[in-house]
Amino acid sequence: MDVNILACALFAVLIMSLVSLIYGIYKTRWIFRQPVENEKLLRISGYVSNGAMTFLGREYRVLIPFVLMVAVFLALANRGQLGFQALTFTLGAACSALAGFIGMKVATASNARTTSAAEKGLAPALLLSFTGGSVMGLSVVGLALLGLFAVLSAVIIIFTGRQTQAMTDIGLPLLTGFSMGASSIALFTRVGGGIYTKAADIGADLVGKLEANIPEDDPRNPATIADNVGDNVGDVAGMGADLFESYVGTIVGCIILGQTAIVSPEIRTELVALPLLLSALGVVGSIIGIRLVGRGSGISPQASLNRGSYTAALIAALGAYPLFWYILGDHRVGQAGFNQIYLSFIVGLVAGVGIGMLTEYFTGMNRGPVNAIVKACETGPATTIITGIGIGMRSSFLTILIISAVLMLSYLMAGLYGLGISALGMLCTLGIQLAVDAYGPIADNAGGLAEMAELPPEVRSVTDRLDAVGNTTAAIGKGFAIGSAALTAVILFVAFKEQAGIESIDLTDPTVLVGLFLGAAIPYLFSSMAMGAIGRAAFAMIQEVRRQFREKPGILSGKDAPDYNRCIDISTSSALTEMVAPGLVAALAPIAVGFLGGTRMLMGLLAGTTVSGVILSIFMANSGGAWDNAKKSIEEGASEGKGSASHKASIVGDTVGDPFKDTAGPSLNILIKMMAIISLVIAPLLKSYWN
Amino acid sequence: MDVNILACALFAVLIMSLVSLIYGIYKTRWIFRQPVENEKLLRISGYVSNGAMTFLGREYRVLIPFVLMVAVFLALANRGQLGFQALTFTLGAACSALAGFIGMKVATASNARTTSAAEKGLAPALLLSFTGGSVMGLSVVGLALLGLFAVLSAVIIIFTGRQTQAMTDIGLPLLTGFSMGASSIALFTRVGGGIYTKAADIGADLVGKLEANIPEDDPRNPATIADNVGDNVGDVAGMGADLFESYVGTIVGCIILGQTAIVSPEIRTELVALPLLLSALGVVGSIIGIRLVGRGSGISPQASLNRGSYTAALIAALGAYPLFWYILGDHRVGQAGFNQIYLSFIVGLVAGVGIGMLTEYFTGMNRGPVNAIVKACETGPATTIITGIGIGMRSSFLTILIISAVLMLSYLMAGLYGLGISALGMLCTLGIQLAVDAYGPIADNAGGLAEMAELPPEVRSVTDRLDAVGNTTAAIGKGFAIGSAALTAVILFVAFKEQAGIESIDLTDPTVLVGLFLGAAIPYLFSSMAMGAIGRAAFAMIQEVRRQFREKPGILSGKDAPDYNRCIDISTSSALTEMVAPGLVAALAPIAVGFLGGTRMLMGLLAGTTVSGVILSIFMANSGGAWDNAKKSIEEGASEGKGSASHKASIVGDTVGDPFKDTAGPSLNILIKMMAIISLVIAPLLKSYWN
Repeated sequence: MDVNILACALFAVLIMSLVSLIYGIYKTRWIFRQPVENEKLLRISGYVSNGAMTFLGREYRVLIPFVLMVAVFLALANRGQLGFQALTFTLGAACSALAGFIGMKVATASNARTTSAAEKGLAPALLLSFTGGSVMGLSVVGLALLGLFAVLSAVIIIFTGRQTQAMTDIGLPLLTGFSMGASSIALFTRVGGGIYTKAADIGADLVGKLEANIPEDDPRNPATIADNVGDNVGDVAGMGADLFESYVGTIVGCIILGQTAIVSPEIRTELVALPLLLSALGVVGSIIGIRLVGRGSGISPQASLNRGSYTAALIAALGAYPLFWYILGDHRVGQAGFNQIYLSFIVGLVAGVGIGMLTEYFTGMNRGPVNAIVKACETGPATTIITGIGIGMRSSFLTILIISAVLMLSYLMAGLYGLGISALGMLCTLGIQLAVDAYGPIADNAGGLAEMAELPPEVRSVTDRLDAVGNTTAAIGKGFAIGSAALTAVILFVAFKEQAGIESIDLTDPTVLVGLFLGAAIPYLFSSMAMGAIGRAAFAMIQEVRRQFREKPGILSGKDAPDYNRCIDISTSSALTEMVAPGLVAALAPIAVGFLGGTRMLMGLLAGTTVSGVILSIFMANSGGAWDNAKKSIEEGASEGKGSASHKASIVGDTVGDPFKDTAGPSLNILIKMMAIISLVIAPLLKSYWN
Repeated sequence: MDVNILACALFAVLIMSLVSLIYGIYKTRWIFRQPVENEKLLRISGYVSNGAMTFLGREYRVLIPFVLMVAVFLALANRGQLGFQALTFTLGAACSALAGFIGMKVATASNARTTSAAEKGLAPALLLSFTGGSVMGLSVVGLALLGLFAVLSAVIIIFTGRQTQAMTDIGLPLLTGFSMGASSIALFTRVGGGIYTKAADIGADLVGKLEANIPEDDPRNPATIADNVGDNVGDVAGMGADLFESYVGTIVGCIILGQTAIVSPEIRTELVALPLLLSALGVVGSIIGIRLVGRGSGISPQASLNRGSYTAALIAALGAYPLFWYILGDHRVGQAGFNQIYLSFIVGLVAGVGIGMLTEYFTGMNRGPVNAIVKACETGPATTIITGIGIGMRSSFLTILIISAVLMLSYLMAGLYGLGISALGMLCTLGIQLAVDAYGPIADNAGGLAEMAELPPEVRSVTDRLDAVGNTTAAIGKGFAIGSAALTAVILFVAFKEQAGIESIDLTDPTVLVGLFLGAAIPYLFSSMAMGAIGRAAFAMIQEVRRQFREKPGILSGKDAPDYNRCIDISTSSALTEMVAPGLVAALAPIAVGFLGGTRMLMGLLAGTTVSGVILSIFMANSGGAWDNAKKSIEEGASEGKGSASHKASIVGDTVGDPFKDTAGPSLNILIKMMAIISLVIAPLLKSYWN
């Protein structure tokens, strides 16, 4: 049965990855067939689409040399067949970059079409924007699985025929190479995207709204196109790359944990097959779920999205049981039988939903926390900030309780392997989760385009309804991204220990403690760098917008056209310049500590960065989300309403929250995973260096 | 030599503690002999002094039943001679409380006298305010050493005659009981004091300054007395209790580490004597240093304070060498000879200064970071907040680098014992460091009194010069408090492992990781509770001040006297009510995790809380300090000056920073030490519970 099951699993992965991609292409063609008749709309959406492609093009021009350099380094540093790690690394980077490219391309094509569809009503607009998002989900999952299929098949066929032991010696390093490739792209896309979007946003708001007194998304504002491009760069490409990394990292981590678990030798191969089959099952669930969204009339957008997600989760939960039973049979992984391992899977699945609900509570409108901020706005910006920080901190504590419960329960049920499986439970229906997530910025953009193309207010009111749902899904998506990043990091961390050949790491060893201190401090350094970068980039943007208004007074009266491209250029080049320094911190910290301080200090470093980074990230994301919705509540009439002193205080909160929730917070997800995966890649080198 | 050296050490400790206390009494009598002729000044300072005593009285009325309850629990939970832990716990609480009482009593007596002295010039005012602060330093050190002397003598004489082994079995638990007693008082004084001072401060500022447009410290403001009382409660009693705990915790931790280190049996007793002698030496240095401050003419207050501190440090550094040589001789502790152990001592001493300098750089006026905030104030409150947070985060990373260097260097030189000794190096001259620290609030109060008593502006300008220096010393003191708390927590943590009989804690054990996650999240929960408490307390204060202004319009015109006592009462009762919940978190978290999750999870918890708490604490303290001085810079004419839009933005920053730097940040010091010491106390119980 040994190799047959692996062949089956690989086949299933191949099929489901192709199904995903083909279904994505089908959806894409459908989107491009949808008409956009309004010419102004078409022209403006063309600006956004071009701006997005310009950014990606220039980003890839920076990234390709970087990827090649790392690949050369990997080829030189590794001996023999391990040198192929350079290839898998490049493949991982290419798959992640391609997924980002497709997602952005389709998202920027869907926005104007969503606006057009909104003229016909809510249901068609929902269908269009969600379809746009689902292409992102399908291509991330499809390309991740296709890449993994290629790496694993190559390992089995070319290098080792049918010897199982080769999986540990060569397969795992090549898989981690693939994962690291994905990570590199994720880091730069998340950080760069976060800087891009906030520079444009702050620049557009501060000069346009506050100084020139023109509304948001007004076409007279030179930074408004950059602002809309930014939504796509940050929330579509950035989020996609982030979760691509989590998805790949978790599958790879699961395979590694399976190979190092205590099992009877005859099921070693089964434990490679299992995560692959679970992922394939998740794709089935996701596609069925995606097909359900937007069908049927008379239900709200939120209910429709929920129906899709829950269906996918249910399919995964029900389908996994026979899978575990068939593959594991009476065998045990450590102490655990298939029932316990299955339960770990369910724990992860449920926790993903739980984190989302908690995030929704802390950042949702008309809930206690956001209302508390609204009330604090009445006593000024200082109390607004203090209250928001307090709420973010409380929410981060509670989210950690959920993450701790997942770790503890899955470990108690099925040992270290249970950890891996629970993370997979959280991530296996990524296809639809990402679709729901990417739908938000498309709806948001559609609203912006309606404004800029000066369409009738009914259109805007349809897109606003979609956008409001999008805010909730974005918050839930962020919580989910952080939760899964935490689990992925823990799994990679445990896998690192196995790969580095370390028996036990004593927490009371001061070398480890020093690593822990340094590791816990790195997210603070990284966040301060990211926020400093936004400050500089936003400053440049503010200067440019002011300059255009000053030099061409005709812009404000509508006579002259603003120069959108200069603003896009500033956001793009700021993002690309500023992403380097925090990127280097993430990449070099584990290498420096590993070679100077040793593997023990490195383990401490990883643990410290993981726990401190996860908490800081949740705190920042949720404070930011709550401030954002407090502002929206006031704009919709809560407290003293739009234009009042409390509205001004809420704008301060929102502006502080922007870099929190859209740059520093989400970038920390990548930081913790990236540091773990780099450690995993250098583990064999460290092992020989220190022995 | 065995027992003789211990007897000598105890004798030295007794002598130096008595010298401290007697010198403190001598200083106190000198202060009370100084005249205050202005009657109004005398009356107002009487309000402050009474308010402070009211708070302490009511605080102790809450604390005494609490201390007794814990004591009864300790008496019941421990068997046999260990039941005496209840007594040492009570003694520790009593010593810490008494030190706080003396410090406050003298500080509130010194403020009016400093104001009077300021009429004669800068030098007499400096001498008076510093003398007031030095009583705090002397009584903390004197009472801590006296208490330790009592506990150790009792152990040796009553229980065990001259058997050395008893030190480990009975002596150490009794010592940790003493330390925990100090901790309990510290927790409540720091948290309660922090809430008290900020409720009064925010209430006085928001209604008085912003709504009624009267200057700071105006006697017409009903909350102004409470505000001045708050400075004493938070910065004198709170800071004193905090460092009392660090001092005792470090000495006790050092003794424990000495008993568990690998040494030849004949020097076990020497390793009990060593920390005692080093502490006694530190007192000698402190007293000489204290005598130098304020003497000699023609040097600035800052230089005069520095001369005292540096002299004390130099005496400790020079005197320690022969001490190490004489006591350790050719013996080794682990691998380390006396030279290496001495170097650990020096590393700690130097690092204490280094952290202070770093803090001064990040929070001092006319330095890069504060100037960056001043510049950010010009673009509004949001950028002010973002910049300040970025600066706080960066400074916390750098401070962690220093702490990590201390840990690593002292460990490499002299193993775990080196850690203990380096912490002692940082803390042994606590007497003068605390004196410098407590001088700040006295000078600040003196300025407030000058304002309230409507003395001529020359007086205020003298106290302002002292106050400006006080801001710097306060920032340095906070950095020092956090740094020493970090080291103390690490030492207690390592000591806990020894006491709980744990061989090794595997960091990759998910149970430990879960502890780490939970531990890292606790400081966030604790901070959010502390900040929420301030919000509620300040709200009550705002309502009260508004009510008084509304119901007695004569207050503002100076016809009616405001009701200061109501405001003092609100601050007092808010502080006492609100300190309970965060206090319970600190006290119950280790107990719950220890008994439900096991010692491994508890170790993870302690490590997580320590690293995350230290970083968060530094971040909050330094952001707050930098915002405060950015506001002061603008008030002194930087940027657009007082009353401008950038001044308003700076006030927002300062108001956000207040709970950061005066409540949440410093309270985290206590949290991490408290959790470690409670764990240490329950270690024997856990050991028998889990075996």
